[in-house]
Amino acid sequence: MTFTDKLSAAINTNNSLVCVGLDPDLEKMPAHIAQLPNPLYEFCKAIIDATVGAVCSFKPNSAFFERYNDDGMRQLKQITDYIAEGYPHIPIIYDAKRGDIGNTNNGYVINGFENLQGDAITVSPYMGGESLQPFLQDETKGCVVLCRTSNPGAGEFQDLTIDDGQPLFLHVADRVANSWNEHNNCLLVVGATYPDELKAVRDVVGSDMHILVPGIGAQGGDLEKTLTAGLNMQTKAGLIINSSRAIIYASNGEDFAEAAATAANELKDQINTVRG
Amino acid sequence: MTFTDKLSAAINTNNSLVCVGLDPDLEKMPAHIAQLPNPLYEFCKAIIDATVGAVCSFKPNSAFFERYNDDGMRQLKQITDYIAEGYPHIPIIYDAKRGDIGNTNNGYVINGFENLQGDAITVSPYMGGESLQPFLQDETKGCVVLCRTSNPGAGEFQDLTIDDGQPLFLHVADRVANSWNEHNNCLLVVGATYPDELKAVRDVVGSDMHILVPGIGAQGGDLEKTLTAGLNMQTKAGLIINSSRAIIYASNGEDFAEAAATAANELKDQINTVRG
Repeated sequence: MTFTDKLSAAINTNNSLVCVGLDPDLEKMPAHIAQLPNPLYEFCKAIIDATVGAVCSFKPNSAFFERYNDDGMRQLKQITDYIAEGYPHIPIIYDAKRGDIGNTNNGYVINGFENLQGDAITVSPYMGGESLQPFLQDETKGCVVLCRTSNPGAGEFQDLTIDDGQPLFLHVADRVANSWNEHNNCLLVVGATYPDELKAVRDVVGSDMHILVPGIGAQGGDLEKTLTAGLNMQTKAGLIINSSRAIIYASNGEDFAEAAATAANELKDQINTVRG
Repeated sequence: MTFTDKLSAAINTNNSLVCVGLDPDLEKMPAHIAQLPNPLYEFCKAIIDATVGAVCSFKPNSAFFERYNDDGMRQLKQITDYIAEGYPHIPIIYDAKRGDIGNTNNGYVINGFENLQGDAITVSPYMGGESLQPFLQDETKGCVVLCRTSNPGAGEFQDLTIDDGQPLFLHVADRVANSWNEHNNCLLVVGATYPDELKAVRDVVGSDMHILVPGIGAQGGDLEKTLTAGLNMQTKAGLIINSSRAIIYASNGEDFAEAAATAANELKDQINTVRG
């Protein structure tokens, strides 16, 4: 099954464009979980079980695990094993923003796609598509390329105007859509904090490409503007709306998993109201 | 001690611009080492002990460790602990090419600079200097920014001409030198495979900034052209010349460490002949 088929099936099964970002932080999670052995795993496991019916994907961010070196990496694998075994229909997007020269990327491919059983990985475009071939060559694995990121200073280089009059991020979108996507396994990242840029990217890449949209919730992105700008018109889909902090830290009490489920379902419903 | 001072002291102590890249690969290392427990650590430890008098820095690349998930991350920490304890005068450049939104980067900062005791880390510029503040704010830690990378397809975006007539990689060089470098802790990466671009970067950043140059050896970069293009004229320094495979796999027999020392010393001498 290709990555795109697995993602589309999950979107249809749960009727949801919501991705829950797994960014576990000992200081933000409930104290009774933070005190357990393997707290990153225990916290994420509870969030996964509570929200799995409301999502189209889970997105663990590597930084929150690497913070704890080998112990964090071990717990990340516990989490991805748990998803892959218990909920094999839900894609895992390993958010690592990797990118190195070609032969070096093989190490990241093996960790992301084999050890961690990721269905997709986020990558940085700066070194070019040639360097990213190890990520791009397998149609069963998605390659999610940074395009217009959600952070306040994203435009420093991404908005530079190239001599043909287009900004850099649209060149990235164009190259990914029209050159890198031979195996129909490429996606782009565009932040919800920039709906105009999201619209421009959708216009460049056409209706088929999925766009991963972080920045809803804690980062302040506007959901309705995002959907209007980024949904494809044929299927009212083509977006993966990520929310991390607003869902996983909806409560830091005993009810945290229940609160996360409520928040994920609310987001799903808000999105579906606009999708119609 | 600032990162720049530590690096300059190591360059002067060993009279060397050589950086040994620690890219351990079970299939390329000698079989008698690959069979040991903790083979990544044992291999790198022997390379470190053999070459430490000929280098200004060691550069472990994270991909070669992450390939083995938590076991690799654990051995990477063994290696960096070994350098930091046994050879505290030699900087560790953690080659991870990281970059995420600001608060997420804190996880990478803690792993790279605290857990792994790195003196510097490589980062991708694509998300902008605002996102990289967690890496940039500490003068005792170096921030090594990808500028013109050594891979064959590096130019796909890096060479795009911005509307002021300059290529993107020179915009990156300019921003890093003139805006991100408040704490005098920024470096750039420019591949030895592109000496003309290295010369252009040197002209933009001036004589003080160190440039990390991969691509000598297995990747085919020309050493003499690299030095002519990139050395600053005042001190005949300002470059860190990395070699990984040509040094660490100089032999795959019992004499691998001795062969690595010979290769590292030869590279050091070749460089110093040009430096005069």
